[in-house]
Amino acid sequence: MKIENIDCRTYPGSEKVYLPGEIFPDLRVGMRRVNLTPTVTIDPESGEKHIRENAPVYVYDTSGVFTDPDVEVDINRGIPRIREQWTAQRDDLEQLDEITSEYGRKRLAMKELDSIRFATHHKPLRAKQGAGITQMALARKGVITPEMEYVAIRENTNAAALGISSHITPEFVRQEVAAGRAVIPANPNHPEAEPMIIGRNFLVKLNTNIGNSALSSGIEEEVNKAVWSCYWGGDTLMDLSTGDNIHETREWIIRNCPVPMGTVPVYQALEKVDGRVEDLTWEIYRDTLIEQAEQGVDYFTIHAGALRTHADMIAERLTGIVSRGGSIMTRWAVIHNEENFLYTHFEEICEILARYDVAVSLGDGLRPGSIHDANDRSQFLELDVLGELTEIAWRHNVQVLIEGPGHVPMHKIKENMDRQIEKCHEAPFYTLGPLTTDIAPGYDHITSAIGAAQIAWLGTAMICYVTPKEHLALPNLEDVRNGVITYKIAAHAADIAKGHPGAQVRDDAMSRARFEFRWKDQFNLSLDPARARQYYVESHKDDDHFCTMCGPNFCAMRISKSVMDDCAK
Amino acid sequence: MKIENIDCRTYPGSEKVYLPGEIFPDLRVGMRRVNLTPTVTIDPESGEKHIRENAPVYVYDTSGVFTDPDVEVDINRGIPRIREQWTAQRDDLEQLDEITSEYGRKRLAMKELDSIRFATHHKPLRAKQGAGITQMALARKGVITPEMEYVAIRENTNAAALGISSHITPEFVRQEVAAGRAVIPANPNHPEAEPMIIGRNFLVKLNTNIGNSALSSGIEEEVNKAVWSCYWGGDTLMDLSTGDNIHETREWIIRNCPVPMGTVPVYQALEKVDGRVEDLTWEIYRDTLIEQAEQGVDYFTIHAGALRTHADMIAERLTGIVSRGGSIMTRWAVIHNEENFLYTHFEEICEILARYDVAVSLGDGLRPGSIHDANDRSQFLELDVLGELTEIAWRHNVQVLIEGPGHVPMHKIKENMDRQIEKCHEAPFYTLGPLTTDIAPGYDHITSAIGAAQIAWLGTAMICYVTPKEHLALPNLEDVRNGVITYKIAAHAADIAKGHPGAQVRDDAMSRARFEFRWKDQFNLSLDPARARQYYVESHKDDDHFCTMCGPNFCAMRISKSVMDDCAK
Repeated sequence: MKIENIDCRTYPGSEKVYLPGEIFPDLRVGMRRVNLTPTVTIDPESGEKHIRENAPVYVYDTSGVFTDPDVEVDINRGIPRIREQWTAQRDDLEQLDEITSEYGRKRLAMKELDSIRFATHHKPLRAKQGAGITQMALARKGVITPEMEYVAIRENTNAAALGISSHITPEFVRQEVAAGRAVIPANPNHPEAEPMIIGRNFLVKLNTNIGNSALSSGIEEEVNKAVWSCYWGGDTLMDLSTGDNIHETREWIIRNCPVPMGTVPVYQALEKVDGRVEDLTWEIYRDTLIEQAEQGVDYFTIHAGALRTHADMIAERLTGIVSRGGSIMTRWAVIHNEENFLYTHFEEICEILARYDVAVSLGDGLRPGSIHDANDRSQFLELDVLGELTEIAWRHNVQVLIEGPGHVPMHKIKENMDRQIEKCHEAPFYTLGPLTTDIAPGYDHITSAIGAAQIAWLGTAMICYVTPKEHLALPNLEDVRNGVITYKIAAHAADIAKGHPGAQVRDDAMSRARFEFRWKDQFNLSLDPARARQYYVESHKDDDHFCTMCGPNFCAMRISKSVMDDCAK
Repeated sequence: MKIENIDCRTYPGSEKVYLPGEIFPDLRVGMRRVNLTPTVTIDPESGEKHIRENAPVYVYDTSGVFTDPDVEVDINRGIPRIREQWTAQRDDLEQLDEITSEYGRKRLAMKELDSIRFATHHKPLRAKQGAGITQMALARKGVITPEMEYVAIRENTNAAALGISSHITPEFVRQEVAAGRAVIPANPNHPEAEPMIIGRNFLVKLNTNIGNSALSSGIEEEVNKAVWSCYWGGDTLMDLSTGDNIHETREWIIRNCPVPMGTVPVYQALEKVDGRVEDLTWEIYRDTLIEQAEQGVDYFTIHAGALRTHADMIAERLTGIVSRGGSIMTRWAVIHNEENFLYTHFEEICEILARYDVAVSLGDGLRPGSIHDANDRSQFLELDVLGELTEIAWRHNVQVLIEGPGHVPMHKIKENMDRQIEKCHEAPFYTLGPLTTDIAPGYDHITSAIGAAQIAWLGTAMICYVTPKEHLALPNLEDVRNGVITYKIAAHAADIAKGHPGAQVRDDAMSRARFEFRWKDQFNLSLDPARARQYYVESHKDDDHFCTMCGPNFCAMRISKSVMDDCAK
């Protein structure tokens, strides 16, 4: 199998630049520099031409080397393993001679998979016995890691270039990670990922979901979706595959993924027992955790908070359980009349996660699936359990995210945020939307962006995108693009409202370009330069000083300039 | 010229129904009834089939007769003049022998326009000398008009069918209109329009903008856009044409428009002086008001609050003046070094408007055009002036809307709403978005829906849609559809958050259909049934009990049902 690179090599009018660290001078923090055209004005009296240069705008860049023209990318070989040199210098990690999961070894031995297998096989890294290797363990010890300095530089993308003061220093990052208020997902087995941070005192992040189901899509399509989602601005990526060859698909994605990757391990565990919920066991699940941790998954969604006792409350709901993981674990508990084994084995789970620095994203198995069910008893009871589990995970130095809803009307959003902060001890909140109405299938990227922008402003650290196909079908590439851009909007609107240092720099540059009719700069500064340009070009003959909306006599900005000229006389 | 009807004759799975009034039994308040399929369950033990009928859902319907299969619509003849029988019974109106505007008479006499002229010519109605004919005048006298009962029934579309109690009675409507807290735009010369109400104690409304510019689009395209926008859910319509044949285009639109229509008269006045701002005069403007009022325009945007003194503050801004009307009037004031003539002649304007019950929508000529300029000095100084003008208009019994921004970051939205309520004495607020970031041209329907949903929840009565082409080009039919649906989402999300009686009925019906895998009902209940169905059909072979997202083993709702079945045993 050979995969063709998807076409997303450059951003128009932009350059890839790298910033070094101060503590770690070898760091190369990738950013995108949007170069602007000069402002040209003609003096109406002398006819003289004045040229004023416009400073470039720096943009937080999630696309990795895919947009670096100096790096030849071949998806069949994987992208550069930038963190390998950092982990090599650590004395708290050991390289294993072989993978330790039973399933992983079995798949490796299957010759018939050679044709679809990723070419290179890497030996896994793991904590030495007793070593606290997670970012949280190190932060608590007072250690500033390269990852911490990397994210500090990255968070100041806009601010640094303009000398805007910022509270975000490597030491601040360390403190936030130590306190559990922020997470740096950084499995040493995924050295391709550029470090990033999830926490409410940082830029709002967005997660994208990809993954095949039994009914659709192969490896090439999924790898392309992964790269594509990073190109448009996805900060993390979850592979939610449930069909064939999950293990091999995941390997392809991780080896080409410049952002942290998450999974829901119970999906694969269920495939291993042919979809029979009753046959799920702790042993199968445990082996799945190790299998995926050694491939390099950076965070696991674990539905350990949906308890047997909650199942009886589901009948109160209009739409029951809408989380796949939540429904699986609840059904398992009811069939066996036992407690959810993810809850009973949570300490052991944390021990595994701690050895690979896999963060746990505590799944909201009982999130509401409709406006009607929002903020109900079972949802909030589960949240209380997630708070208990947070404390357990932190005792093991496992980094924690808390997943949140779902479907919530606007007037019930704030209660979600306030309770989460209180019950889960400020662990970062990571929500799916929420959708603010149920009646717009085909537009649920929008119903949910309305909720996502609000909850992000209130303190949610990461928002999980929703595509236009939500509730209807799996997203294609165009849906991924629409979903990511829509969530970039929600995240950025929240960054501005929260006053993130430098967040407004890009808006101001755009507005200035607008007022000066610098159309190319407007396109290049926009979240989706290709679409902005396309809409414009379709209806314009040239770059004249007005647009088709108003025509020459009705251009407010042109008239406004005359007003300013007259007033200045 | 003959125009083909645009294809929007029916909503799938729906019927047009009409409700009578109690005070006015002849009223026929049009609604859409979505008929649902029954819920079919099979008893797992006996194999017996159970069928439960599902009650239909009533939906507020802005499409008029265009979706009534019993009415044969011909755009060349115009739609039924439903309010003509009501105005005929009034003794406070007089029918004029001919139109009274100079320009209107001139156009009527031009033989060369016959080929593009709407076929039928109606004689205008006007208040008898000294009669207070506006809805506000009547409300203050204690009169409940047919329009008031009509909107009361309409506002309770969902609630009535389910017996949900509602505070919205004809008497409540009267009180709100009398207090100036709500507006019923209802020019007697536009009897084709179905009455609707704009006020913060009612359903949030959305306005759509159409209109050609010097560079684009003809009469047929604009009429089609008008009908199309009503089909998707536009509550009012502004014709912002600035190109040729504005007068004739407007006639075609009004005669086929089932919703109130607004304009910005200064656009046409400026065309009359060939685009030379300095040549604008009060006389030309005055004649334009009468011309348009006699055609049936229901509300005028009038930029009377942008004063000469504000012009000097514009230099503080990043993007100057972005309102076309605001820039025109400010420039006029600066050129002549005189006060804005819309401000100095405001009493006379009100006298004219009062005779035709045209509402005034006080334009925010100095609304911010960028995040940077939001909530600045000139914006709020103009708002103060709009408050003064509101009191003047109300003295003349002229109904008032206040226009609002624009571009506003989330954390500055609430101040806009609070100030508007205070300074403008609770007159309904009518905002354009606001856009919550500047960096997403091509997606500004979304950047602005995020702001619109919030400001509507806080109390804005009507939100003006923004299409994906904003800042780039004029919208086509598909853009209008996207803009309207996006704003229906924002408005509906706000209705739910505000607790409008029955607002959640449709959401609950959708969610129940979702949980029961009644796919056709999901499509038919959605804001855009065609798109929902299209996305589904493209990736499904049949209506099976799971969707492509999760596949058969991973369907949370299916598993959830098993949990409920087991728990119930």
